[in-house]
Amino acid sequence: MPKGQPAVVPDDGLTTRQRRNRPILAVHTGEMKGKSTAAFGMALRAWNQGWSIGVFQFVKSAKWRVGEESAFRALGELHATTGQGGSVEWHKMGEGWSWARKQGIEDDHAERAREGWAEIRRRLAEQRHDFYVLDEFSYPLHWGWVDVADVVATLRDRPGRQHVVVTGRHAPPELVAAADLVVEMTKVKHPMDAGQKGQRGIEW
Amino acid sequence: MPKGQPAVVPDDGLTTRQRRNRPILAVHTGEMKGKSTAAFGMALRAWNQGWSIGVFQFVKSAKWRVGEESAFRALGELHATTGQGGSVEWHKMGEGWSWARKQGIEDDHAERAREGWAEIRRRLAEQRHDFYVLDEFSYPLHWGWVDVADVVATLRDRPGRQHVVVTGRHAPPELVAAADLVVEMTKVKHPMDAGQKGQRGIEW
Repeated sequence: MPKGQPAVVPDDGLTTRQRRNRPILAVHTGEMKGKSTAAFGMALRAWNQGWSIGVFQFVKSAKWRVGEESAFRALGELHATTGQGGSVEWHKMGEGWSWARKQGIEDDHAERAREGWAEIRRRLAEQRHDFYVLDEFSYPLHWGWVDVADVVATLRDRPGRQHVVVTGRHAPPELVAAADLVVEMTKVKHPMDAGQKGQRGIEW
Repeated sequence: MPKGQPAVVPDDGLTTRQRRNRPILAVHTGEMKGKSTAAFGMALRAWNQGWSIGVFQFVKSAKWRVGEESAFRALGELHATTGQGGSVEWHKMGEGWSWARKQGIEDDHAERAREGWAEIRRRLAEQRHDFYVLDEFSYPLHWGWVDVADVVATLRDRPGRQHVVVTGRHAPPELVAAADLVVEMTKVKHPMDAGQKGQRGIEW
């Protein structure tokens, strides 16, 4: 909700309108669930604005079809058939990105992660999407598979009005420093603490 | 993702399957954004399971049409026309609940909040929905408009398999104690700190 006033009015030479419309780089990190879930919730708003949405999942198995993916594919289909909302592209690293035809790297997760980032970088340069979800992208950064400095510089200098949300634990400090919005999901209580396992419709 | 093992296996006489399938009472609280957003993200998974979804918003103005509402109305329409996913009902307190015909309480927010809770209690007893979002319901509880003990007892004793997510700041300790899952959204950094106001597609 657009309530509240900014704490400071910065001396950046921008009008309130220009400042308001700056594209957002958000990071959802922390130990607790809700990081990806909140990113997909944001993507619902983006869809409703008619924005082009690009989701890139860096860790989930390709076999794993999360509920959000199915719902967004339905929303993307609705856009394609009725013009409602925005377009949706959903890519998973899993068994290899859909656009990648290179063979022999199936088991090289680091190479696959770099391939994913290279594609995202191309799309950012082309201003392909309005709203990007880089789901669990913090891990390849944390593990050193993808160069953090390159990611930070590319995101900081991205052209146009492209919003980006990065999710996952252990977000590198340089990325956090570059972000406009950082939310940490903190565990207060989780059913697993009481011996309950994940369940369909709730955890996936 | 259903990874990880429970920290303890409780001595509650339930099988793992029974325990896994216990309905969840979740609370999203804390100072930071993402509370409602993550609840609507969870509702996407519920929709994908074909569950009946009931959203009850306790604070937002009726004039305020959030992006999530439009997207879920589209998903509900998709269910109605093609059978995909689950049904969606979206109710807002704003100018008065859609089911409420009682006149003269337009300006009595406390009475309206109690009316909302009374309806939710009826639906829980009837097992009307599979997944409830009680959005910003923590406020009428915090302000003493709705009786916390009644809410906690009703939620604790609700029949069947009904999942409930309550969002909002200042969740009462009794509600937190009764919940299975509690996430606190903690602010690390927010664009308003740098003088940026909310923007369409991101904040709403």
